[in-house]
Amino acid sequence: MKSCGIIVEYNPFHNGHQYHAKKAREISGAEVVIAVMSGNFLQRGEPAIIDKWARANEALNHGIDLVIELPFAYAVQSADYFAAGGVKLLQALHCEALCFGTDNQTEMDYEHFGEFVNHHQIEIDQAYQTIKNNGMSYPQQMTEVFRTLYPNNGLDFSSPNHILGLSYAKENATYEKPMILYPLRREQAGYHDTKIYQEFASATAIRKAVFSGELEKIKQVLPEQVAIDLANSPTVSWENYWPLLKYKLISSSITELQEIYQMKEGIEYRLQEAAKVSDSFQTFMKQAKTKRYTWTRLQRLATYILTNVKQQEIENSWNYSHLQVLGFTEQGQRFLREEKKKLALPLITKVSKNLTTQLALDIRSNQLYQLGNDHILEQSFGRFPIRIS
Amino acid sequence: MKSCGIIVEYNPFHNGHQYHAKKAREISGAEVVIAVMSGNFLQRGEPAIIDKWARANEALNHGIDLVIELPFAYAVQSADYFAAGGVKLLQALHCEALCFGTDNQTEMDYEHFGEFVNHHQIEIDQAYQTIKNNGMSYPQQMTEVFRTLYPNNGLDFSSPNHILGLSYAKENATYEKPMILYPLRREQAGYHDTKIYQEFASATAIRKAVFSGELEKIKQVLPEQVAIDLANSPTVSWENYWPLLKYKLISSSITELQEIYQMKEGIEYRLQEAAKVSDSFQTFMKQAKTKRYTWTRLQRLATYILTNVKQQEIENSWNYSHLQVLGFTEQGQRFLREEKKKLALPLITKVSKNLTTQLALDIRSNQLYQLGNDHILEQSFGRFPIRIS
Repeated sequence: MKSCGIIVEYNPFHNGHQYHAKKAREISGAEVVIAVMSGNFLQRGEPAIIDKWARANEALNHGIDLVIELPFAYAVQSADYFAAGGVKLLQALHCEALCFGTDNQTEMDYEHFGEFVNHHQIEIDQAYQTIKNNGMSYPQQMTEVFRTLYPNNGLDFSSPNHILGLSYAKENATYEKPMILYPLRREQAGYHDTKIYQEFASATAIRKAVFSGELEKIKQVLPEQVAIDLANSPTVSWENYWPLLKYKLISSSITELQEIYQMKEGIEYRLQEAAKVSDSFQTFMKQAKTKRYTWTRLQRLATYILTNVKQQEIENSWNYSHLQVLGFTEQGQRFLREEKKKLALPLITKVSKNLTTQLALDIRSNQLYQLGNDHILEQSFGRFPIRIS
Repeated sequence: MKSCGIIVEYNPFHNGHQYHAKKAREISGAEVVIAVMSGNFLQRGEPAIIDKWARANEALNHGIDLVIELPFAYAVQSADYFAAGGVKLLQALHCEALCFGTDNQTEMDYEHFGEFVNHHQIEIDQAYQTIKNNGMSYPQQMTEVFRTLYPNNGLDFSSPNHILGLSYAKENATYEKPMILYPLRREQAGYHDTKIYQEFASATAIRKAVFSGELEKIKQVLPEQVAIDLANSPTVSWENYWPLLKYKLISSSITELQEIYQMKEGIEYRLQEAAKVSDSFQTFMKQAKTKRYTWTRLQRLATYILTNVKQQEIENSWNYSHLQVLGFTEQGQRFLREEKKKLALPLITKVSKNLTTQLALDIRSNQLYQLGNDHILEQSFGRFPIRIS
């Protein structure tokens, strides 16, 4: 069965996502559209506004046939690891195509870029080494590296979706059977836009509207079901977890903080001091922010602290990759039935107690996600894939 | 200057405490009454209903001349360590007498008991070894031990205040110049009573009334100032810290939990599981409780978890004992001025940044105490002893 994959977060699901799913099916000619979706913590180091089961359900009702969860160890990561995880799962499903959104304004041969990177990794690393201490942010540095090595291709690393596209391309090119890449120009809403557009809007703008109690204003950019979910289901933002993060930072010794994944360069002292004087997540972030750290990198670090993640756990999770099914349509189920015996990774349709070691990080992060709102249901045990007929 | 010490918690300060201070002065003939008082976490493993500065202020206005803080490492402990800390600080102040409340119904020679214990420690330890695995609680076991070794003296280890009296006596007898002991029979309110009495009431009953919004009912058992403080100042109970404790238990690995002070015998597994299924501190405690652990012991363990205390930190704090002054009357100040050069431990009247290593545990536990209520002020830095004239 011809399949096309997309790698998503749906935070929350909106008209732009529905358009993406529809276009992916059209362009690729796929019979089944598969979404690899982040769980309850997201790439930019945030808790999802609404839980993964609700988001999977919305997606399955609006153009997606199968939702596979991207594990925490891949989901809460910079673009390269995030892309590596997404591509790995789609490859394990023998997906033939990958359709992704891009903000790039120029025509670009992503396949060619992917191959270029894989054949010139040494030069790229060398170029990076010469500028890595120049005080610029990592996105700026990568733009700089490619400006010389791969000129005239509009490689602007300051646009998150464009970076992701490049990362997919790089990762995809490492596989024996790369997927066909279908970049999809994002039509209207820029990633960072906060203004609400007519029909499409960025997820950022939608979240902002939800948290300021202006759900009415954005109803036209959301499928009806999503608007209902956002009104009736428990929603969370970082502020819901702020008391816990503050507690964690104040109660931990510096040595304990240093054991947290990605805690480097003495930032632990800065974060602990910032926590002591801050009374909200926003003030904490502003207090802790330095030129050296992008907001997103700092927010991811905050997520690692909140979830108490160690390097070893991330590596364990990478070593035990799996395909956890969040839900499917009838078409998605047919696809799974056909592919079942050929899958390159174990399929999980139920988190049972004997998987607690392998899935430790995912289970724990889900339990901690629940602490953000009393009404969030159990996320792992006793949950079965959503079936849409 | 003739001085009498008392070792207290004031959770909260009430008429019974005022009576105790007055009687201590009368019986001992002291010119100055010194209270060694627990800080913001208490002997039975609870956060104080109201902060240490408020409690010290109330005490200084109702019969106490000098309030010295009992550090966390001594305060949140079973009777023997609690007593050891209190007696140590009073000895360092060259206090001549110690007056303590007791629920004991029989006349008892505490000095004799203290000497007996210090001369028969080996027999006591041996007797304890033979019954330590009999499944009884520690208080029951100690009652058993002394029933044979020191008969006919009403040594009932199930009454907290009586146990404390015995511990004071034991500890006091180890010093070269023991203090004169003045046991004071508690007149009306039993320690565990929850009914409000006419003029005196147990602190337990008062806290219960405060948290059920029945402050009016207990006004007659409180000095006016205390009633005002309880109505207007931030008060806390364990429930205020429950989200943090739950988070700590769920986010920590078993190995991390095993590093917590007094975490023994696999109780960490039980506590973690209990946290997952509980939605309040009370339900958690009921869920976690076993016959082996008294409620108090479990509550102390919960406090160690919340404050992330390790064995090494407790020992460091013991090694760096000090006299932190929370406040004084003019008489108390005169006493300090006279004694200043003879004190056996360093006197602290201001927590400065260069004391952060020695006072680490106390500073951190105070910062964590603040997380229970947004209105609790900074407890350590920039605070000066209260002066009552």
